[in-house]
Amino acid sequence: MQQRSPGGRTVADMGEFSLIGAVVAGRRQPSTTQLGPGDDAAVVSTPDGRVVATTDVLVQGVHFRLDWSTAEQVGRKAVAVNLADVAAMGARPTSVLVGLACPASTPAQVALDLARGMGEEAERAGAGLVGGDVVAAEEIVISITALGDLEGREPVTRSGARPGDVLAVAGRLGWAAAGLAVLGRGFRSPVGVVNAQRWPEPPYEDGPRAAVAGATAMIDVSDGLLGDLEHIAKASEVSIDVRAGRLVVDQRLTEVGAALGAEPLDWVLTGGEDHALAATFPPDVTLPAGWRAIGTVLEAGEQPEVTVDGDTYEVTDTGWQHWRR
Amino acid sequence: MQQRSPGGRTVADMGEFSLIGAVVAGRRQPSTTQLGPGDDAAVVSTPDGRVVATTDVLVQGVHFRLDWSTAEQVGRKAVAVNLADVAAMGARPTSVLVGLACPASTPAQVALDLARGMGEEAERAGAGLVGGDVVAAEEIVISITALGDLEGREPVTRSGARPGDVLAVAGRLGWAAAGLAVLGRGFRSPVGVVNAQRWPEPPYEDGPRAAVAGATAMIDVSDGLLGDLEHIAKASEVSIDVRAGRLVVDQRLTEVGAALGAEPLDWVLTGGEDHALAATFPPDVTLPAGWRAIGTVLEAGEQPEVTVDGDTYEVTDTGWQHWRR
Repeated sequence: MQQRSPGGRTVADMGEFSLIGAVVAGRRQPSTTQLGPGDDAAVVSTPDGRVVATTDVLVQGVHFRLDWSTAEQVGRKAVAVNLADVAAMGARPTSVLVGLACPASTPAQVALDLARGMGEEAERAGAGLVGGDVVAAEEIVISITALGDLEGREPVTRSGARPGDVLAVAGRLGWAAAGLAVLGRGFRSPVGVVNAQRWPEPPYEDGPRAAVAGATAMIDVSDGLLGDLEHIAKASEVSIDVRAGRLVVDQRLTEVGAALGAEPLDWVLTGGEDHALAATFPPDVTLPAGWRAIGTVLEAGEQPEVTVDGDTYEVTDTGWQHWRR
Repeated sequence: MQQRSPGGRTVADMGEFSLIGAVVAGRRQPSTTQLGPGDDAAVVSTPDGRVVATTDVLVQGVHFRLDWSTAEQVGRKAVAVNLADVAAMGARPTSVLVGLACPASTPAQVALDLARGMGEEAERAGAGLVGGDVVAAEEIVISITALGDLEGREPVTRSGARPGDVLAVAGRLGWAAAGLAVLGRGFRSPVGVVNAQRWPEPPYEDGPRAAVAGATAMIDVSDGLLGDLEHIAKASEVSIDVRAGRLVVDQRLTEVGAALGAEPLDWVLTGGEDHALAATFPPDVTLPAGWRAIGTVLEAGEQPEVTVDGDTYEVTDTGWQHWRR
């Protein structure tokens, strides 16, 4: 029997079906997975009578680089950015569906590592990989859909913030942007910020926790804090003021900023890809664990705006830009 | 105020957010859409307490060609192939999420036409476009996730076929393959088969109808009848025999076959992309409207197999091949 070394195998050698199998094989399925992959569609239970659904696409060279990250890290990231959107509605992630387009010449090991990363991140959030499709393309495009359950609560949208509310965040800010700056200069350390760029660690649990505590609006910070707060401000027709002194600028960001001649507060306020959560809470609410107050919701003036210590924040970089090509 | 002609606008000029808006704007949402696009995630009601979910990815040059089809037709096709998977579970489509990766230089009109086609096909099936993501890539990759509701019925999987069951199909077979043969030779007519290749018209209603009638197994015919029946045979551990005489070979397929020197029965038995539905029913069931009997489920011999008039069917082309690159 002829055998080829695993190192030389490609995605095309594996074939579509065995790759889908590898993406999902050996993964623990949560109790919500009634029918996993392998049929025309999956069946997922929705105890709440509603399902939260979101989709995000990641493209090689735009959203990740396989010379900066391992395939496993890319897989984790692809799933994490979607599950963060589910958490930002106050929902608990239940399921993930994976669409993978990649060159037929992609080493099988890369696809398997991508799959392992996806599975690990889904498990970390309590979700199951319930379906997938693998097709040939010229570059790697990963498209993920995540589903979640509201557990009987109302979804926390972007439009419920009211003047007087407290603005709070959960999770890290600025780390991924600092990591991008480091990697962009050709460095590979400090590893803390570099890994934050390689894959985010969204605080999934803090989404439902905020909803239980009565959060009035919530958003996943994917494009940068100020830019994403602008979405809340516009949707809620309010203004939002961030108190710079309340923001945590970690010592490591300060050090990287000093080394690269960059302003770490820029990263905290406008850096994307950390997938922290930002939410507004009624003024009398005790913030749940994991959340820290960083500002206030105000009446909108002529138009909704987001300020820092009462002023427009001036930065060179104004958030994450998708259209790089 | 400086204005640019619409003809010269690109996807990058539109920006990510306005393109997502265009994908979904002005579309009627079904009653299941509780929160449409524009927030971190959509909220879709799932009256059944379960949701059916499936994802499929289409790549330019592999699954569609914009010199063969209009962008609107491609949009319809991308949504149709996913909704057919939902119908094949016996479920009614409720929602569609769209991931679109395309070059920043893509004309805005192409993206808008793609979006219009997606919206039209979703509406045709009673589903809403509830979310989307648009990113830059080197080629056009469309990734769709479709959700559906089982309306209290059990999902019709691939594994329930039993010896003695009747095999039946709903929808057209062989048309898209005939169209592919025509287009591949550089012709643009006959328009019936060419359009069948450009976008399929899956018989969505026939999926739930089959489930209500007691179908024991069902599959969406995407890769060719014989190949897809093999999935049922293996999952159900049965053999399946197709009666060639029961298959409808439309006069147009016969004519195209004669013109191209091809065997039209090959297209009917192995041509993909028509997205007909194939299902098995208990022998005593009166087939619902839209379904026609074409064979029988048998005890598996040494291994499950699919035969035509009791024999292995010999074709040159053995189904749809994704790995063309």
